[in-house]
Amino acid sequence: MTLSVDLNADMGESFGPWVMGNDGGLLDVITSANIACGFHAGDPDVMASTMALARDKGVGIGSHPGFRDLQGFGRRRITLPDASLANLVRYQVAASAGMARALGSELRHVKLHGAMANMTSENLHMARVCYEAALSVVPDTIIMVLAGTAQEQAVRELGCSWAGEIFADRAYNDDATLVDRSQPGAVIHDPAIAGPRMVEMVKAGAIITESGKRIATHIDTICLHGDTPTALEIAKSVRTSLQEAGIRVERLSGRH
Amino acid sequence: MTLSVDLNADMGESFGPWVMGNDGGLLDVITSANIACGFHAGDPDVMASTMALARDKGVGIGSHPGFRDLQGFGRRRITLPDASLANLVRYQVAASAGMARALGSELRHVKLHGAMANMTSENLHMARVCYEAALSVVPDTIIMVLAGTAQEQAVRELGCSWAGEIFADRAYNDDATLVDRSQPGAVIHDPAIAGPRMVEMVKAGAIITESGKRIATHIDTICLHGDTPTALEIAKSVRTSLQEAGIRVERLSGRH
Amino acid sequence: MTLSVDLNADMGESFGPWVMGNDGGLLDVITSANIACGFHAGDPDVMASTMALARDKGVGIGSHPGFRDLQGFGRRRITLPDASLANLVRYQVAASAGMARALGSELRHVKLHGAMANMTSENLHMARVCYEAALSVVPDTIIMVLAGTAQEQAVRELGCSWAGEIFADRAYNDDATLVDRSQPGAVIHDPAIAGPRMVEMVKAGAIITESGKRIATHIDTICLHGDTPTALEIAKSVRTSLQEAGIRVERLSGRH
Amino acid sequence: MTLSVDLNADMGESFGPWVMGNDGGLLDVITSANIACGFHAGDPDVMASTMALARDKGVGIGSHPGFRDLQGFGRRRITLPDASLANLVRYQVAASAGMARALGSELRHVKLHGAMANMTSENLHMARVCYEAALSVVPDTIIMVLAGTAQEQAVRELGCSWAGEIFADRAYNDDATLVDRSQPGAVIHDPAIAGPRMVEMVKAGAIITESGKRIATHIDTICLHGDTPTALEIAKSVRTSLQEAGIRVERLSGRH
Repeated sequence: MTLSVDLNADMGESFGPWVMGNDGGLLDVITSANIACGFHAGDPDVMASTMALARDKGVGIGSHPGFRDLQGFGRRRITLPDASLANLVRYQVAASAGMARALGSELRHVKLHGAMANMTSENLHMARVCYEAALSVVPDTIIMVLAGTAQEQAVRELGCSWAGEIFADRAYNDDATLVDRSQPGAVIHDPAIAGPRMVEMVKAGAIITESGKRIATHIDTICLHGDTPTALEIAKSVRTSLQEAGIRVERLSGRH
Repeated sequence: MTLSVDLNADMGESFGPWVMGNDGGLLDVITSANIACGFHAGDPDVMASTMALARDKGVGIGSHPGFRDLQGFGRRRITLPDASLANLVRYQVAASAGMARALGSELRHVKLHGAMANMTSENLHMARVCYEAALSVVPDTIIMVLAGTAQEQAVRELGCSWAGEIFADRAYNDDATLVDRSQPGAVIHDPAIAGPRMVEMVKAGAIITESGKRIATHIDTICLHGDTPTALEIAKSVRTSLQEAGIRVERLSGRH
Repeated sequence: MTLSVDLNADMGESFGPWVMGNDGGLLDVITSANIACGFHAGDPDVMASTMALARDKGVGIGSHPGFRDLQGFGRRRITLPDASLANLVRYQVAASAGMARALGSELRHVKLHGAMANMTSENLHMARVCYEAALSVVPDTIIMVLAGTAQEQAVRELGCSWAGEIFADRAYNDDATLVDRSQPGAVIHDPAIAGPRMVEMVKAGAIITESGKRIATHIDTICLHGDTPTALEIAKSVRTSLQEAGIRVERLSGRH
Repeated sequence: MTLSVDLNADMGESFGPWVMGNDGGLLDVITSANIACGFHAGDPDVMASTMALARDKGVGIGSHPGFRDLQGFGRRRITLPDASLANLVRYQVAASAGMARALGSELRHVKLHGAMANMTSENLHMARVCYEAALSVVPDTIIMVLAGTAQEQAVRELGCSWAGEIFADRAYNDDATLVDRSQPGAVIHDPAIAGPRMVEMVKAGAIITESGKRIATHIDTICLHGDTPTALEIAKSVRTSLQEAGIRVERLSGRH
C-alpha cells in the first residue's frame, strides 16, 4: 500500500489593490487551496482569479470562511448566536461553491479560518454548528479539520466526509495543541527540518510532539504557508521530502 | 386561454439591527421575492430569515444583486471593468443560490438592483455582462428584466429564460422609460387607480403610456412596493383587481 | 442649593437609508446627545444632521464611539491590543470633535457605546486606555461614566472632568450592576414609575437597588431611550417629574 | 532670493494586515505626507503609526480624504449630493486633525485622493464644496491643488491658503492635463530624467509640456511615489537634483 497526503494552503487573501501572500508560487506546490470568501479577506475579483488559477493547475478549490472582520483579518474572536454563525458560514460557502461552478470547476472542501478555526478547535458545539451549516450548502464536501481537536470530534459525530490536518511549520504539545508562538522552537523556520519531520509523522500516522510523544491520528493533509521566502522554501521541501520517501502527494479524496 | 402574471417585490433589505420595509406584509401579496444579497442591503441573517419566510409562503426566491455600497443602498452609479462587474454578480447570485439550497429551497430568478438596474437598462453590453455572469452560476434561472429596455434586448440575445417586468406605481413615457419622479403624476399613489391600470396593461399585453400610446411587450411580472402603508394598499389593490378580472396571479414560470 | 441633573440619550444611529430611533422626539427632552461616530452606527451625513439638530435645540453634543462592527451594532465584544483600542477611540472622537466644529458647535462629552461600554465598566485598565485616548484628542471634554463601575474608577484616577450616569429604565442589583434583562422587573416599562424613581435617586444622591439598598454615587446624568413609544413616554415622564420636584434639568457642566 | 519647493507623497495606505507602499523609505525624502483617512485606505492604527513616523521625521502631516470605497481604493468615480460630499470630507479631515493632535502634532494640509481628486480637477463647483468642507474643520490649513486645474481656481476663489502641485513622473499635455497613461512617454520611469526635469520646471515657474510649451503656474510642491524600487529612486533623484541646483527642499509654508 502506498501512503498519500494532500498539501493545503490558505490563499486568495488579497483585497482590492492590496496583495497578500504568494499564491502563484504556492499553487505549484500544493494540491488543495483554501480560498478566502470576502469576509476576513478576498473579494469577488480575487476569489475568481485565485479559483481560476487553482483550476488551471489542477489544485482542489476549497472554501475558507471566517468572521466578518476585514481589518482584523478574521483573527479576533467574536461570539455569535448559533443561527448567526451558521448563516455566516452558509453565505460564504455558498459564494465559494457558486463562484467555482461559474468558473467551470467545483468546490472540493471547506476549512475554517483564523479565530473561527481556533474557537471551533476548542468548542465542539460551535464546530458542529459551522460544519452543519457548510454541509447544508454542499452536502458532499470534505471538511478539513485540525487533527485531534474538537473539530475532528465534530466531523466524526456528523459522519460526514473529512480530512485531518497537521502543520508543517509548528511544534506540538503533548495534548496535540500547538506550542505557543512565544516559546522557542514553536515555529519551524528551517526547510531542512520541516520536510523530514512531515515524512516521519505521515509514516507514523501520528503527530510527534516536542517531547517525542506520538499521538495517533489521521494525517490527510499538511498545512503550508507561502507568505515569506522561507515559508515557500519549507513548502517545497515538504513536498520533495514526501515524494522522495515514496509518499504520494495528491489532492484530498475525502476519506473516513 | 387564461392570462396570468407574477407579482414581485424587493425585500430582505434590512441590515443588522436596522429594519427596512414590510416584508411580512408583502409576502402575503406577491409571488416572487427579490432578496438582497448583502452588498447594497441585507446580511446573511436577513437573507436566511427572508428566504425562509418566502419558502414557507410559497413565494419564489430571487437573487437581487447590486453594487457594493451599503451607505448608498446601491443607488450610486459605479463604473466597473467587465470582469469585476461579472464577479460582483457571480458572487452575490452564488451566495443567494447556496443559501436558498441550505434552507431546502431553490433560487428561481435574478433581478438587478438600483443603479445596476438603471445602468443595464440603458447599456446593452453591461446588461449582457451581468446576465451572463448570473447564468454562469445558475444556468436555468429566470432573468427578470425591465420590459422594453436594453435589459430585455440582452436576454433576447442570450436566449435564456426571462420575464418582462412593469411597475404598478409608475407612469411611462412614450419610449417605455419611466416618467421622471419630479414630474406630476410620475408616481401613482392611489390604490383605486393602480389596480385597474395594471389589469388594462396585462390584458392589452402592452405598456400604456401617459399619452395613451400602447407599447406591446411581454408583461410577465409586476413590481410592487411595501415600504409605506399606501404602497402596501396599492400592492393589495393590484392583486385583487387582477384576480377579479380573471387574471391568474402565479409565480414566474420562466417563459420565452 | 438647587439640585440639577442632565438627561442624555444615544442618537445618530441611523445609517444610509436605514432609520433608527426617534432623535427628533428625544431632542426635545434631553440635554446631552451621545452621537454615533460611524463605526457601530451613523455615517457622516447622519452625524452632521444629528449634530445640527442638537446644536439648534441647545442640546450638548457628545461623541459615542464603539467597536467597528456595523452589522453587530457594536454589541459584540472584541478584544483588541491597547494601542488599537486607543486609536479606535481617538479616531472616532476626533471625527466627532471636528464635525461639531465644522457645524459651528463644539464637542461637550464622550460616552462609550455597547460592548465597549460593557467591557470598560468591568475592566479598569481598558477603561483607562479608552479615556486617555479620548482625552488625548479633546483634553477638556467631560467623560460620561456608568456610576459605580470601573469606568468611574478610571476617571477618578485620571483626574479628568467626568459625569456619573444612571439608567431611567433599568433596575439595579446591590453591587450597582444592572439586573439581568432576563429577570422580571429588570426593565421598567411604566412611565408612572420611572419618573418618581429618578427623583428619589437624584434626591438621595444614590442608586436605590431592587432590595432597597442605597449606593451613594454622583448622579450627574440620566440615560433615556426613545426607540419605542413607551420609551419616549418614560423620557418625558422623567423630565417632568424631575422638574416638578424642583430639580433643574440642565446640560452637563463637567463637575468633579 | 532662494527658490524652495515641498516634496509630497501619499502614504498610510496600508489596511489591517495588508501593507501598501514604502512609507519608511519615502519619509526620508519628502517634506509633506498625505495620509489616508480610513475610507479608501488606511485604518486608525495605520493613521496613528504613519503620523507618528512623519512627526518624528519632521515631515508635515496632511489629510488625504477619498471616497468610501475600500475595494476600489477610492479610484471609482461616485457622484454625491453636495451635502454628502461635504460631510464625507469633513469627517475624514476631522479624523485626521484630531488624530494628529492626539499624537502631539498638528494637521498642516489637505489633499484630495483618487477619483475625488480627478473629479474636482475638472469640476470647479465640486472642488469648492470639498475645500469649503475641509476649511470648515481646519480653517487655517493649506489646501494642496493640482496646478492649473479647477482645483486651483477653487482655492483662488475661496481665498484660502494653498499650494500648487506638479507630478515628478508624469508628462503633461498643452492644456496642463496629464498625458494619458496609455500613451508612450506618459509615465517617466528614468530617475536620471525626472530630477533635472523638475529642476527645470521649478526654475521656470512653469509646467513644461511634452511639446515644450511653458504654462506659468505656482509650483509649491512636487508629488512623488514610492511604491516601486524605481519610484523611490525617482523620488531620491528629484530631491538630490533640486538641492544640487540650489533649490531648498522644505515643508509647505502655505503661501498665496
